[in-house]
Amino acid sequence: MDPLPDCPILAGGLRCPILVPVAVCGRDSEKGELALLRGIRARAAAQALSGVRVGIGDDCAVLGVRAGEEIAVTTDLSLEGRHFRLDWHPPEAIGHRTLARGLSDLAAMGARPVAAFLSLAVPPELTRAGRGSKSRRGGKSWIDRFYDGLLALAEAYNVPLAGGDLAEFPQVVADIVLVGAARRGKAMLRSGARAGDAIYVTGALGGSAAGLRALQALKGKKPSARLAAGLAPHLYPQPRIAQGLWLARRGAATAAMDLSDGLSMDLARLCEESGVGAEIDEPTLPVAPGATLEEALHGGEDYELLFTAPAEKKLPRRIAGVPVARIGRIVRRGSENKQARRPRVILLSAAGATALEPEGWQHFRSGGLQAGQ
Amino acid sequence: MDPLPDCPILAGGLRCPILVPVAVCGRDSEKGELALLRGIRARAAAQALSGVRVGIGDDCAVLGVRAGEEIAVTTDLSLEGRHFRLDWHPPEAIGHRTLARGLSDLAAMGARPVAAFLSLAVPPELTRAGRGSKSRRGGKSWIDRFYDGLLALAEAYNVPLAGGDLAEFPQVVADIVLVGAARRGKAMLRSGARAGDAIYVTGALGGSAAGLRALQALKGKKPSARLAAGLAPHLYPQPRIAQGLWLARRGAATAAMDLSDGLSMDLARLCEESGVGAEIDEPTLPVAPGATLEEALHGGEDYELLFTAPAEKKLPRRIAGVPVARIGRIVRRGSENKQARRPRVILLSAAGATALEPEGWQHFRSGGLQAGQ
Repeated sequence: MDPLPDCPILAGGLRCPILVPVAVCGRDSEKGELALLRGIRARAAAQALSGVRVGIGDDCAVLGVRAGEEIAVTTDLSLEGRHFRLDWHPPEAIGHRTLARGLSDLAAMGARPVAAFLSLAVPPELTRAGRGSKSRRGGKSWIDRFYDGLLALAEAYNVPLAGGDLAEFPQVVADIVLVGAARRGKAMLRSGARAGDAIYVTGALGGSAAGLRALQALKGKKPSARLAAGLAPHLYPQPRIAQGLWLARRGAATAAMDLSDGLSMDLARLCEESGVGAEIDEPTLPVAPGATLEEALHGGEDYELLFTAPAEKKLPRRIAGVPVARIGRIVRRGSENKQARRPRVILLSAAGATALEPEGWQHFRSGGLQAGQ
Repeated sequence: MDPLPDCPILAGGLRCPILVPVAVCGRDSEKGELALLRGIRARAAAQALSGVRVGIGDDCAVLGVRAGEEIAVTTDLSLEGRHFRLDWHPPEAIGHRTLARGLSDLAAMGARPVAAFLSLAVPPELTRAGRGSKSRRGGKSWIDRFYDGLLALAEAYNVPLAGGDLAEFPQVVADIVLVGAARRGKAMLRSGARAGDAIYVTGALGGSAAGLRALQALKGKKPSARLAAGLAPHLYPQPRIAQGLWLARRGAATAAMDLSDGLSMDLARLCEESGVGAEIDEPTLPVAPGATLEEALHGGEDYELLFTAPAEKKLPRRIAGVPVARIGRIVRRGSENKQARRPRVILLSAAGATALEPEGWQHFRSGGLQAGQ
């Protein structure tokens, strides 16, 4: 995997030693686990963890939130062969993506991250340094490199890893838990979109799907510099925490969610929760460099924000440095669709109006990626 | 598995339809998952979920806690072949045990449960009704029966299942997340034990290990009524939430943890976190019916509370109906052990004083249970 691009956060150099304490709640009985835990804990250094009162070595972590705040909680599974492949994805990218998925859910609610928890099951050989040519880099074990990627993103977003669980298992399974805080009653929900609202997305769409397509074509070959850059949106997506906080603090959005399964699928979900329909103006879609229109419409794992706001509300072109594109409008749910399970989303293009069916991002199930598993 | 005892909670009859809404945060992209989710959500009925403001269908659940409270969070993996076997454990017991592990961690902190989250990965055949002779009972799918067990315990302890994740995977992986609340600064930690404190445990020890031994000997045969009763501590352990709350509210304990990996291992951990040693009086140990002394000392998954309190403090013989036994005392960590990784725990018996080495509960790794995996 060495020809693949480095984690941009790690490549920039950690500003200080890993600052987050890694605690493990509950099970840490086996000697191998204990040794591994000691190793992980040895990476921890002192940091002022304002939200984490008890992090290491107890049955639970204890977190504090501020007066007037509510707690947002999300859990996301990342499964070998489903969300990543050990022979395709660098361990740093798998760690990064694991945490990014959870942070993106907090971003969608407009919540600030308080703490992350990681339950991780790994084959024992991935915990050993220098074993397995695919996981070797500077003598580090696969799991060390996984934590490198995860903790670098954690540091960049100032979220302590406050606990979790660790176990041996034949395949890699990671369950990331994010605990965040939002002002009481101010968390952005999927259910608030109203007819007449404008529809927005942050960043660009389809970049992750295009990157996965390129990764698939590589089959381990060294990518050109141009291709390597194109892999970053897939390998190292950036959760839109600052943008979510910006929107929530101003009460700017009527509804919001993150784009984890593709615009067609996720917009249909937002419409379903809000009881509305939607029209998308194809020419306004911010298609990522190298991505096709299909990938922008249906590709998953972009982790951009999809949100709605009153049409008359003036929003900046960028929020916290990330472009915001107005891509359509919320409409009443047509009476002809009352029997339909999903509200119809219409795609308006030069060719006319067509129904945008939610195709659904199938991760590795629909592609050829699972063949090698 | 039908000859095995029923879940005692389910056997008593649910007092009402399953009351807890099941939401899934984040990923629910695939059609099979969507159908399954709709099925799970259809089981939900209206309940006054005071702590859960947003539970279903959004990127995160939103929880409220009371003023002056801190949040306790724990995550615990339950892995097929490691913590349970599909051909040995009834699905209801696997669901029950999955949730019990998390609740027990909250009990150890003296925290009240606020909400549970379940990330569950299952082979697709376990989601189909009537498929697979081992998972059939009343035409229910394995996953339905798993939720029966988990939700019955959730209802008994009044904890809503407020979210999670669901995915297909070749093996069953469950990660339970419990969010609880404790009065600020009042959560019971492992680190507060002081020389001179008395050591206590709730309930009886070794019952789960004895039950597992009986389950192993059964190999699918129908147990006698007496044997079936002996399996309950293993299949349906009861987390000590009420006892933990009782201790925390009174500030009665100087340190506490739950016994998930056996007294020898867990007491060594408590001593390590507190920087102390311990002496156990063997004759005072509450050995569970059918269990051996070895099982009481080293067997895991009893989910009883281990706690310390000042020797002069008078504690009742029962807390919320569960017996409390005084089993020894905390001592200074001997100078001869300063180099040792673990503080020494001494077992005092008629034969004299011996070091109680932490043997560690190895789940299925040390037994013959994994042979069939």
